[in-house]
Amino acid sequence: MPVRWALEEVGQPHEVRLVSFDEMKEPAHLALQPFGQIPTFEHGGHALFESGAIILHIAESWPGLLPDDATSRMRAIGWMFAAASTVEPVVVDRQVTLLNEGGEAWRDMRLPLVDARIDRRLAQLSVRLADEDWLDGDFTAGDLAMISVLRRLAGSPLLKPYPNLCDYVARGEARPAFQRAFAAQRAVFEDAVTKGE
Amino acid sequence: MPVRWALEEVGQPHEVRLVSFDEMKEPAHLALQPFGQIPTFEHGGHALFESGAIILHIAESWPGLLPDDATSRMRAIGWMFAAASTVEPVVVDRQVTLLNEGGEAWRDMRLPLVDARIDRRLAQLSVRLADEDWLDGDFTAGDLAMISVLRRLAGSPLLKPYPNLCDYVARGEARPAFQRAFAAQRAVFEDAVTKGE
Repeated sequence: MPVRWALEEVGQPHEVRLVSFDEMKEPAHLALQPFGQIPTFEHGGHALFESGAIILHIAESWPGLLPDDATSRMRAIGWMFAAASTVEPVVVDRQVTLLNEGGEAWRDMRLPLVDARIDRRLAQLSVRLADEDWLDGDFTAGDLAMISVLRRLAGSPLLKPYPNLCDYVARGEARPAFQRAFAAQRAVFEDAVTKGE
Repeated sequence: MPVRWALEEVGQPHEVRLVSFDEMKEPAHLALQPFGQIPTFEHGGHALFESGAIILHIAESWPGLLPDDATSRMRAIGWMFAAASTVEPVVVDRQVTLLNEGGEAWRDMRLPLVDARIDRRLAQLSVRLADEDWLDGDFTAGDLAMISVLRRLAGSPLLKPYPNLCDYVARGEARPAFQRAFAAQRAVFEDAVTKGE
C-alpha cells in the first residue's frame, strides 16, 4: 500500500506483479529482495527493495512528495526514517507478538509492555503534531510513511487516546491518491477471493 | 558512533555536544528530537534527527559515502533502509529484551525466538554478501549503516556462524575513518569516567 500510495501521489501509472508466499522464498525473488520480503520496485531497468527506499526514490523521481527547498526536503526524509526506525519497530513488535507468539503462555503478559512502548511513541508524536495537518508544513513522503505505519494500529485501541493522530490518519486516507491506491489494492484481494485463491 | 563515523568518512570536522539522560527529556532537546533520543545533528543553521536521515544528509552533502551514478546511489540508500527497517529492529528487540524484560519470568523463554529472528536475517544477509567486501560494489553509507547495526551483536554469539559477516564488520572497523571515530567516542567515555560522572 505505501508504494501504491506514493505512485498515486506523483501520478505515475504502474504495473503490479503479485508474488505468492512460496515465490517470495524462491531464487528469482531473492535476487531482487535478499530478505524474501515484498515489495520490490522496478524502474528504468533497475530494481530496488525496502518500502522506505522505494518511496524515497519515487519522491526524488517525480514531484509531489518532497518539498523543493533543501532544508524542508531533509526534514521530510528525517520523518521517513523516524517512521521506519522509531515508530514502525514497536508497532511491528505488537503484530509479530499477536501472530507468532500466540502459542506461548507468556504472550498475554508481555503484550502490555509492548503496548506501553507504542503508547510512548504515540504520545511523543501527538505532542509534535499538535494541531497541524501534517508533520512539517505540506504533506510529504514523511507523512505518507508515518501514516502508513499508524494505519497498522487500526485494529487496536492504541490510537484512540490521541484524537489528533486519529485525525491525521483520516486526513491521509481522505487524499484522492490514497483512495485510488486503496481501491486498487482492494480489487486485488477481491479478485483473489473470487478465484478462490 | 554511526554519525561520527560518517563525518570522518567524508572528512568533515565537527563539534560534539553531549546530552545527559535527563537533558534528553527536557523541552530544549525535545524541540530538536520529538522522541527524546540521540543523536541530533545541526548544520547550516538547521537541525535534523534520526541517525539514518543524518547519515544520508552527510552522504548527500559531501563526497565519499554515495556512488555518483543514480542507480548505484539508489541501491546504497536501499541498504540504508534495509539496515534500519529489516535488520536493526530484530537486533534492538534482543537488546530491549535483555535490558528491560530481565525481571520477567518468561524473558529466557522468549530470547530463543528473538535470536531465531536475528539468525534468519543474518543468514539472508550472509548469502547476499557472499565473498564480496561490501554489499554493492564500493563501500557506501549502506555498508556504514549495516555494519553499525551488526556491531550491536558484538557481545552475542549470533554473528559467529557467519564468518563472512564477521569479516565484513572487521573490514568496516579497520577503516581509518572508523578508527578515528571510535577513538573520539572512547575519549568521551574515558573523560566521563575520569570525572566520576
